[in-house]
Amino acid sequence: MQRPYNFSAGPAAMPVEVLQQAAAEMLDWHGSGMSVMEMSHRGKEFMSIIETAEADLRELLAVPPNFRILFMQGGGLGENAIVPLNLSRGGVVDFVVTGSWSQKSFKEARKFCDPHLAASNEADCHTRLPAPGSWQLSPDAQYVHLCSNETIHGVELHELPDLKALGSNAPLVIDFSSHVASRTVDWRRVGLAFGGAQKNLGPAGVTLVVVREDLLGHALSICPSAFDYKTVADNGSMYNTPPTYGIYMAGLTFQWLKRQSEGNLRGIAAMEHRNMAKAELLYGFIDQSSFYVNKVATDCRSRMNVPFFLRDESRNEAFLAGAKAAGLLQLKGHKSVGGMRASLYNAMPLEGVQALVAYMRDFEQKLA
Amino acid sequence: MQRPYNFSAGPAAMPVEVLQQAAAEMLDWHGSGMSVMEMSHRGKEFMSIIETAEADLRELLAVPPNFRILFMQGGGLGENAIVPLNLSRGGVVDFVVTGSWSQKSFKEARKFCDPHLAASNEADCHTRLPAPGSWQLSPDAQYVHLCSNETIHGVELHELPDLKALGSNAPLVIDFSSHVASRTVDWRRVGLAFGGAQKNLGPAGVTLVVVREDLLGHALSICPSAFDYKTVADNGSMYNTPPTYGIYMAGLTFQWLKRQSEGNLRGIAAMEHRNMAKAELLYGFIDQSSFYVNKVATDCRSRMNVPFFLRDESRNEAFLAGAKAAGLLQLKGHKSVGGMRASLYNAMPLEGVQALVAYMRDFEQKLA
Repeated sequence: MQRPYNFSAGPAAMPVEVLQQAAAEMLDWHGSGMSVMEMSHRGKEFMSIIETAEADLRELLAVPPNFRILFMQGGGLGENAIVPLNLSRGGVVDFVVTGSWSQKSFKEARKFCDPHLAASNEADCHTRLPAPGSWQLSPDAQYVHLCSNETIHGVELHELPDLKALGSNAPLVIDFSSHVASRTVDWRRVGLAFGGAQKNLGPAGVTLVVVREDLLGHALSICPSAFDYKTVADNGSMYNTPPTYGIYMAGLTFQWLKRQSEGNLRGIAAMEHRNMAKAELLYGFIDQSSFYVNKVATDCRSRMNVPFFLRDESRNEAFLAGAKAAGLLQLKGHKSVGGMRASLYNAMPLEGVQALVAYMRDFEQKLA
Repeated sequence: MQRPYNFSAGPAAMPVEVLQQAAAEMLDWHGSGMSVMEMSHRGKEFMSIIETAEADLRELLAVPPNFRILFMQGGGLGENAIVPLNLSRGGVVDFVVTGSWSQKSFKEARKFCDPHLAASNEADCHTRLPAPGSWQLSPDAQYVHLCSNETIHGVELHELPDLKALGSNAPLVIDFSSHVASRTVDWRRVGLAFGGAQKNLGPAGVTLVVVREDLLGHALSICPSAFDYKTVADNGSMYNTPPTYGIYMAGLTFQWLKRQSEGNLRGIAAMEHRNMAKAELLYGFIDQSSFYVNKVATDCRSRMNVPFFLRDESRNEAFLAGAKAAGLLQLKGHKSVGGMRASLYNAMPLEGVQALVAYMRDFEQKLA
């Protein structure tokens, strides 16, 4: 039987080969006589798993040597507090608000620092990104916060800003939860990047933090030790017991990513090529339709998260029921936005998007 | 082939039936077409998983209705900050230090409140618990912190203190990470209990918090929202994306626990009966031997974690190598204590302890 296509925004579909390998290794990892879940995190078996995962991720994302890779807990919402606890020094922080997630980051930061709204697309209902040239950056900002892909509103920044060129010396912090590993990252423009794993990296419960070394060691005294980046880095992500199984699953996903190719492209470059093709197919279909609509400005559209609406919203329930019957799962939009949302993360093959478009066309034609 | 016996202190052995079920359901949970890892946490499938897990745990541990059950992230070390952030109101907190874990809790609390050392067994090298009657409790304490089983030092409090009888009106907070679900809990004496899942409940990355409702809603303003108990409770452990797969595995473990019986005993009572038999067998063997030694006072010995030493420590490496060859894994003691440690959590059958004792006897006799 064909496995259904799962368009969940997260926790999201995982590569089927990864799930198969995990199932096969569940009772006995590599002849150790243990499930990965049963291993001491300080034993040589799990140490090899986490070290391989980190090295594979560093290679895949081309993370420079002066950045540390941390596996943490608490997700993106946890990081909304953990980043200012570590980087703000209680001072001014610039926020660029582009949708629900950066809005939440901005609000949470008030507990720990002096957040300044440098730009917002709220007046545009988060459908259009404010141009970097229009951002009101503070001269004394400790960092600039940006969500480079907004999962709920479906807007994505396709080029990271060069803060220096914009007159700011602050490091850029990006929340890349929902498009990490879907495209390359220009680390020259980044001070810290964080993301929950549950979209493109693995299961929920692992939070990835990639941080430039000079940003370590400046945490506020009220920062919990378990969430102090320097403590976590100094202990190789083992200050507290890490979410071992989630890191293992992320590691299997990294190995799967390394095996992917498109022509001469390998790894993340191959994924980016595929992700562009998937997004073009779906947006192209929506734009030519008078039945469906996506409201996001063309140059700000997310490749990962495609929110769309039926122009006649009384058809929503029928659309979702038919989709499920056709093996197309979890297409319901976020409750704050409504409508539909198709998330096209790395694990979604082009065939899944083709099946979705075929279903959407069919649904439209039946009602025509 | 006989599966090895895994004595890891945590992450620790899990019931083999639980692992088998997880492997079988990895690609398709109950005909949903999804792995549990791939489900939106807000969809009806995962909602049924978390609600069943919570109800099963409430039944197993006999948690009264005026307590909330929270599934969080960050582990015991995270809770060392999260508890004072939520309960201390910045005031005085009494700490009973009985080993490494309560020592860490005491140190971390300085960031958020005024911790007071009410008692300590440090002078006894953490081998003897200070009698509750000797605790110097503060009249104005916001709560009293106690680690009811010290994983590293192998001391366990076999009866929770009645703080009222000791003259304190403060709620009791217990870190029960390493013996949760191994025995019944007298909730009349507890205000809050927390524990990492990775010993007796499931995989690492899930933290259980059981908290009396009147203790919610008093967090300090600097408490991160994702770690504010009231926010977590109000959102059914879904303020941030929960560690869904870990909660699923814990839920399978709870179902396994409900199926266990010993004579007329069911669930936790059956486990407690088994755990006493396992501990008696191992301590009894150690005490009659002149080759091995356990240094903990008899009435304070942990049923879960049995640290022991070879009197001739030059034999340690040979002991561990032979144990591994005999299918007895992860017996090395914690680096801070040295020697050996056998953790006898719920998933360890009596046969595993019998095999360990047989090996220990054999190892001793060969060298006699």
